[in-house]
Amino acid sequence: MNWILNPAAGVSAKHQQQAIARQGQLTKPPGSLGRLEDVAVHLAALQHCDAPKVERMAITIFAADHGVAGAGVSAFPQSVTAQMVQNFAFGGAAISVLAKELGAELQVYNLGTVSKLDALPGVRDCRIAAGTQNLAEQAAMSNEQLQQALTLGSEAIADAGKIDLWLGGEMGIANTTSATALACALLNIEPATLVGPGTGVNPETQIHKARVIETAIALHTPSSSSAVNSNAVNGNTSALACHYLQHLGGFEIAALTGAYIAAAQQGLPVLVDGFICTVAALYARAINPGVSPWLMLSHASAEPGHQQLVAHWDQPPLLQLDMRLGEGSGAAMTIPLLRLACALHNNMATFADASVDGQVES
Amino acid sequence: MNWILNPAAGVSAKHQQQAIARQGQLTKPPGSLGRLEDVAVHLAALQHCDAPKVERMAITIFAADHGVAGAGVSAFPQSVTAQMVQNFAFGGAAISVLAKELGAELQVYNLGTVSKLDALPGVRDCRIAAGTQNLAEQAAMSNEQLQQALTLGSEAIADAGKIDLWLGGEMGIANTTSATALACALLNIEPATLVGPGTGVNPETQIHKARVIETAIALHTPSSSSAVNSNAVNGNTSALACHYLQHLGGFEIAALTGAYIAAAQQGLPVLVDGFICTVAALYARAINPGVSPWLMLSHASAEPGHQQLVAHWDQPPLLQLDMRLGEGSGAAMTIPLLRLACALHNNMATFADASVDGQVES
Repeated sequence: MNWILNPAAGVSAKHQQQAIARQGQLTKPPGSLGRLEDVAVHLAALQHCDAPKVERMAITIFAADHGVAGAGVSAFPQSVTAQMVQNFAFGGAAISVLAKELGAELQVYNLGTVSKLDALPGVRDCRIAAGTQNLAEQAAMSNEQLQQALTLGSEAIADAGKIDLWLGGEMGIANTTSATALACALLNIEPATLVGPGTGVNPETQIHKARVIETAIALHTPSSSSAVNSNAVNGNTSALACHYLQHLGGFEIAALTGAYIAAAQQGLPVLVDGFICTVAALYARAINPGVSPWLMLSHASAEPGHQQLVAHWDQPPLLQLDMRLGEGSGAAMTIPLLRLACALHNNMATFADASVDGQVES
Repeated sequence: MNWILNPAAGVSAKHQQQAIARQGQLTKPPGSLGRLEDVAVHLAALQHCDAPKVERMAITIFAADHGVAGAGVSAFPQSVTAQMVQNFAFGGAAISVLAKELGAELQVYNLGTVSKLDALPGVRDCRIAAGTQNLAEQAAMSNEQLQQALTLGSEAIADAGKIDLWLGGEMGIANTTSATALACALLNIEPATLVGPGTGVNPETQIHKARVIETAIALHTPSSSSAVNSNAVNGNTSALACHYLQHLGGFEIAALTGAYIAAAQQGLPVLVDGFICTVAALYARAINPGVSPWLMLSHASAEPGHQQLVAHWDQPPLLQLDMRLGEGSGAAMTIPLLRLACALHNNMATFADASVDGQVES
């Protein structure tokens, strides 16, 4: 069996119940810390402990180019992917600044920029190819390349060492086109209703982008009589998800999917960033549904299609700041909220500790 | 002239423009940091600098009791106000934990708990009276007491010393009743449409709470021929706001109002917490409209009426975590977002610095 189907780690119902009980004893009206209470309870269940924490954390950015960039779907030239890898390494990108402020390790995996880069600090050169093929004309990658990308994602989790939380980010010019195609194919959504401006294309280019995605989906949808489709109809979406990931995906998106699955298998909580990461998380769940509790949403992106994707989670994102940058930046912004939620859970006095009278009615 | 009418400090249009220009040069698609860009630009304008920061900050909690608690409008007994002052001092309350995590100074002003408290670390004993009078039966406080409370608020700003940002919080059993009455009177809102559960009263008590507020407003609304009303009709709401603050307010709410005005006069940016603080901020603006740019909303409270109040600001709150605790806790949660917004603004590379290609279309 392929490693991606191995079961996810268990979640502790005992620690969840204990955390809920403790929240009810802290010196505050019940429920008055809102989402922060849910976060602390969920982290206690994932971390199998009474005092959840987000101290040690790591961020991995997966970067790769997309053949579909040649179809004119992005506001930025393809050269920017490699330039931004350098910018990550030299500390000038948003995620570099955030990682430093948050005291998080930042690692970049170059899975396939078009141009080869010189050795850079904090950048692992593991280029699978000089970008994917144009998904509107052929499969974005071979099955072997898909397996490589998934495995490189799992290696990022292994490389991260002993941490409390992990988050992934992505960089790849044209990758909202790939991600939108993936989401539309898996969830059976019309591209025109999900497509957005990405890094900032104008309305005409956005219409063109939707047509490119329609063409790609028409080309790569397996026939209804195929084995992958029959399995999906019977509730096993694993093979269908891998099929789409290979044909419509990107190296960095597949690596994120592999990383999410590996993190869940190793019992490592994950914060999911915006539009592209949410698509990768949906694919991780489609391949291996047991990973779900480990993949926590972080922020609601300004990319309009993100709302439709986050509706597949029980808990909505914590933050909504109209961000649409990628790089894991929205997830990084959420870290302080998780840290403070843990501090409140662990360090507040109970009504008994502080000799404070409880509620007289409810 | 009363000090509360002195003009607010100026905001730097030059630094605002420079900050907007810098945001456009940073290595990210224009606007892709969303609200974080607005925050950095606004802080640059308020702080008259190119590199805005939120390093040194102070939190003041104003605590006081309310005579209207005797009308059975709260889920908690009145004893809790003084008990929570002790809990703040000993580090067990939510805001104590948050202040410690954020490296912020925490000071408590006891403006009028019913019971006198022994000396406590970090608590200034400045009790104006043993709580206010029942606002449904008489004026909550005298005009002298109102002036004392406003001035104590300004002293909190002076005490805070040289800081980059200040936030106030409140503690006072029954103070959502006072705050709701204040908001309804000033904004001409039906109490039944604004009243909420506060610390968690049941629906029957909530209906009772609305009736108590209706009675209070009927009792304290000045006649249409009165001087305060004529001035208000002509756009000068200062006297009317002071009238309501005296008759329907609380010592801690009036102190918040005074602190907001003093902070704006001294050019100190302020983060406004939830329902009660937003009412105090509305009163600060009604008394002295020039203070507006200095009072930044932080979080959207779960208290249902808060939505109607925040609609009076140009910029919506940054956070929505379903919190409804008070104590300045929602504002404190927002601090890391401001700090990260400043770090991004100050430390990201520009396209030129990083040799990254710009947008090819827009």
